[in-house]
Amino acid sequence: MPEYKAPLRDMRFLIDNVFDFHGHYAALGATDASPDMVGAILEEGAKFCENVLAPLNHSGDEEGCHFDNGVVTTPKGFKEAFAQYVEDGWHGVAADPAYGGQGLPQSLGLVLSEMIGSSNTSWGMYPGLTHGAMSAIHAHGTAEQKDIFLSKLTAGEWTGTMCLTEAHCGTDLGLIKTRAVPQADGSYAVTGSKIFISAGEHDLSANIIHLVLAKLPDAPAGTKGISLFIVPKFHADSGERNAVHCGSIEHKMGIKGSATCVLNFDGAKGFLIGEANKGLNCMFTMMNHARLGTGMQGLCNGETSFQGAIKYANDRLQMRSLTGAKAPEKAADPIIVHPDVRRMLLTMKAFNEGNRALAYFTAQLLDTAHLSSDATQRQDAEDLLAFLTPICKAFMTDTGLEVTNHGMQVFGGHGYIREWGMEQLARDARIAPIYEGTNGIQALDLLGRKVLGSQGKLLRGFTKLVHKFCGANAEHPQLKGYVAQLNQLNGEWGELTTQVGMAAMKNPDEVGAAAVDYLMYSGYVILAYLWVRMAIAALEQQDADFAKAKLATCDFYFKRLLPRTATHRAAVEAGSECLMSLPAEAFSL
Amino acid sequence: MPEYKAPLRDMRFLIDNVFDFHGHYAALGATDASPDMVGAILEEGAKFCENVLAPLNHSGDEEGCHFDNGVVTTPKGFKEAFAQYVEDGWHGVAADPAYGGQGLPQSLGLVLSEMIGSSNTSWGMYPGLTHGAMSAIHAHGTAEQKDIFLSKLTAGEWTGTMCLTEAHCGTDLGLIKTRAVPQADGSYAVTGSKIFISAGEHDLSANIIHLVLAKLPDAPAGTKGISLFIVPKFHADSGERNAVHCGSIEHKMGIKGSATCVLNFDGAKGFLIGEANKGLNCMFTMMNHARLGTGMQGLCNGETSFQGAIKYANDRLQMRSLTGAKAPEKAADPIIVHPDVRRMLLTMKAFNEGNRALAYFTAQLLDTAHLSSDATQRQDAEDLLAFLTPICKAFMTDTGLEVTNHGMQVFGGHGYIREWGMEQLARDARIAPIYEGTNGIQALDLLGRKVLGSQGKLLRGFTKLVHKFCGANAEHPQLKGYVAQLNQLNGEWGELTTQVGMAAMKNPDEVGAAAVDYLMYSGYVILAYLWVRMAIAALEQQDADFAKAKLATCDFYFKRLLPRTATHRAAVEAGSECLMSLPAEAFSL
Repeated sequence: MPEYKAPLRDMRFLIDNVFDFHGHYAALGATDASPDMVGAILEEGAKFCENVLAPLNHSGDEEGCHFDNGVVTTPKGFKEAFAQYVEDGWHGVAADPAYGGQGLPQSLGLVLSEMIGSSNTSWGMYPGLTHGAMSAIHAHGTAEQKDIFLSKLTAGEWTGTMCLTEAHCGTDLGLIKTRAVPQADGSYAVTGSKIFISAGEHDLSANIIHLVLAKLPDAPAGTKGISLFIVPKFHADSGERNAVHCGSIEHKMGIKGSATCVLNFDGAKGFLIGEANKGLNCMFTMMNHARLGTGMQGLCNGETSFQGAIKYANDRLQMRSLTGAKAPEKAADPIIVHPDVRRMLLTMKAFNEGNRALAYFTAQLLDTAHLSSDATQRQDAEDLLAFLTPICKAFMTDTGLEVTNHGMQVFGGHGYIREWGMEQLARDARIAPIYEGTNGIQALDLLGRKVLGSQGKLLRGFTKLVHKFCGANAEHPQLKGYVAQLNQLNGEWGELTTQVGMAAMKNPDEVGAAAVDYLMYSGYVILAYLWVRMAIAALEQQDADFAKAKLATCDFYFKRLLPRTATHRAAVEAGSECLMSLPAEAFSL
Repeated sequence: MPEYKAPLRDMRFLIDNVFDFHGHYAALGATDASPDMVGAILEEGAKFCENVLAPLNHSGDEEGCHFDNGVVTTPKGFKEAFAQYVEDGWHGVAADPAYGGQGLPQSLGLVLSEMIGSSNTSWGMYPGLTHGAMSAIHAHGTAEQKDIFLSKLTAGEWTGTMCLTEAHCGTDLGLIKTRAVPQADGSYAVTGSKIFISAGEHDLSANIIHLVLAKLPDAPAGTKGISLFIVPKFHADSGERNAVHCGSIEHKMGIKGSATCVLNFDGAKGFLIGEANKGLNCMFTMMNHARLGTGMQGLCNGETSFQGAIKYANDRLQMRSLTGAKAPEKAADPIIVHPDVRRMLLTMKAFNEGNRALAYFTAQLLDTAHLSSDATQRQDAEDLLAFLTPICKAFMTDTGLEVTNHGMQVFGGHGYIREWGMEQLARDARIAPIYEGTNGIQALDLLGRKVLGSQGKLLRGFTKLVHKFCGANAEHPQLKGYVAQLNQLNGEWGELTTQVGMAAMKNPDEVGAAAVDYLMYSGYVILAYLWVRMAIAALEQQDADFAKAKLATCDFYFKRLLPRTATHRAAVEAGSECLMSLPAEAFSL
């Protein structure tokens, strides 16, 4: 089984050398996030994740969650781990001090969440959903709602959920049927059935606070008639049980330690949060948070898979190197001598480290958007966040799934056997391209809403960064070749966008036809930018071996992975006709 | 759950219109394989698979196999289905009449195996392994061995296995430790432990005949010292239990209805088959058979996944088409109106139909190699088979895995839930790129042994076919654009091969570095050839709707999938340095 060790060396490299978190925190006045504090979170967080969460990962998968007449029991050890997590103060690290949090920047919360998700993705869903609920209540709740709910959620006494999906609608939330009827006391009676509710029922916390999308009786049709309600499992005042019950839990391919619930609301007492009929906007506060978190799952499963694969590739003896024995004293060479095994390992390494850089880069934007005193700076950060969020979600999860599949492949037959732990990572990783808006939906959000919807402005916010960076580094003695390649792709990206935009004006289907390949193309270019930034930073620090590894991985990325842009570009340019010409009934011919 | 219906329309199109199975059988003198017989096998085989095997697929996955003190019980219904399969005469369809088979061509056996594997991959492993054992005994056994074992195996009274892998070696069979010590009676005492033995122990048949790789006491080191032995579970003469026992079964990601066994041989009585120390050659008879069969699993899981996805995409209502409502009378449009859903569905369709064509094309070569009276024709078929087998195995399983993942994605969240059956197909499909020689090993076999090892002869055997075909169709009124594109790629394929060959002369690691991308590149070009052949045949038959669907899918293949060759070519051309420069210990930096 892969034994997760937090990749502190690489994390510190990004924090210290690439993105200068310390200068960033100082500029934002986040004085509590001192280098000592960052160091403590990394080291103590790593210990907690490695020693408490990781040992429950495989057993949690084997045991799964139990459902018995409305009661959900999480796998052995999950409850105790959550209690320790709360007691050690991890839950409130990035939460508002006004409600008991530590008030550290979001980026530090994200660094912590990487270690949590890598050691135990299923377990991490419970605090993850709670953080999402907290951010929605923080952004949209009344002072009273915050006092009542946010403090308990921050303390980890209660946990939270987001209840969107119904059996007949996931993507298309305008179709929801759950109803909320106003009551004389100002509350609402919520009635309906929600499915796929992660952490919807469990035994980790004394109470569960559901954030529920529902429609008021007089609501307009579609998404403009959706409101958001707080529906607690137990009433905050009386402690009485509310009329919300778990009808069943799903049997899933993976993340089996995470309870995925059907929740039935039978006139449950709820409270409107935010404005009536503006519920989707409020929910988006949670969803953007959740989308970055979901993107992280691709990195998390990928990192743990890589750690397993690299160990196995060094241990497993099989065949001799094509260029002559490398370990003649052994029965065979370790399989890491074989070029194709290295191809898989380097693909894993290049995606993981690139995705980690993308996540940390994005997390800094979260900090700036929240903490900067400069309105322009905040808006710029918001714009870049809006642009990068769907890419983080979809690119990191698609490549994360690829990484976990390489990890299995490196193990050969043992990769398919449960006890080795590699196939669990591939099963766990498989949900991430689906939930929180499928990757197809992310791609439509990116190309349709963000890029074309802003007449290219949000894209230019990023390509300008890259352009400037390429200008500044065009003569870099060791890296100018990569810089030139990046610069060319960066220009091509803009042209490709214009091309799709022109076609879309004539035919809106062009957006849908291009979207997924456009998103993946964008992700590869963004990672190329981040890989050159990492290479530069690696050359500027003192550890020569580390620099060599970074440069070799950057080289691999440019030579072996970045060429995939050609395929995605060709697919974008192929247009919609080859997708739309076949009548629906002819697909089965 | 996807309800499998044998795609008889497409199968008949290949059999009748593209590959003219009837003319092919007539030319080979396979008169029993009359059009009526082919029709009966298609129709009755489809009924058996749809009605008997398909209903056991999901339940078999949920239940899995049970192990209790050496006894393995297969999922409910598997045993009865096997009895019916045998009783209905399916087991011996392509087997030698001298031992009770029907003597129909291999290609018909393969067509039948497609329906079996599509309806229930796990169940299909039991007869599949038996067919492999039969072919090895047929090719290498003595007359007595054939009399004793082949007739019982053909009758389906007994089943067979292939026992290669040991805990410390899968790919590198030269390392096996199982020993066979000659006994006074001419038999051998076989001692050792084998793992990953599919169908190694189960309750479907009265006896199990193991084909076991082991070393004689005086055997040379490495693969040159491996011999093959027949080791029955129960002795054929006395009916006594032999000293081979199942120590445990594996808990796997998928194919849970297929028992994957640890087999312990404790001085079990065995019989040498074939020449001493030539066991690996004998085993290759089974392995080539098994590799094509494994390639089929990619197609099989992909086909069933497609059938589920196409139904769901027509049923599921979600969002409106970007070009305006297509089903205004409904709450939303069926998701098949969305370009990105079509992209996934067409990818599935194009791979499935292309892979089916590749499988049937290859199966015809099997017939020719077995049945032709012309030695040159037989040798040409053998050469093409040698070339295509690793491509069938690796390309069809990699793309099959991709297809099943698209199938899950089309279902959104429901794709991840077990009861919908789509995730099982992705789990079942995941083994195929691993076993029977990982796809990395297939790629080395293709590029190193087959292509470069023959100084390009085996490749030219195929590219000449394509060249000739392109010449004959260069002016095709509707398809000349595709023909030109194919012709160009076909030329480029040869150049790319020369390039790798030159590099490999200086550095053998270049073969390993290029192999997987070279294989995938080759697969895409081969499918392009088969797609144009299908398009031509579609235009020449009478069903206009069917022709339209084929042409649209061909168009999609050329515009959206074939451009992937650019990425694979770039990876091949990137060479080995970017893989080999990093010291092994630096991977974890």
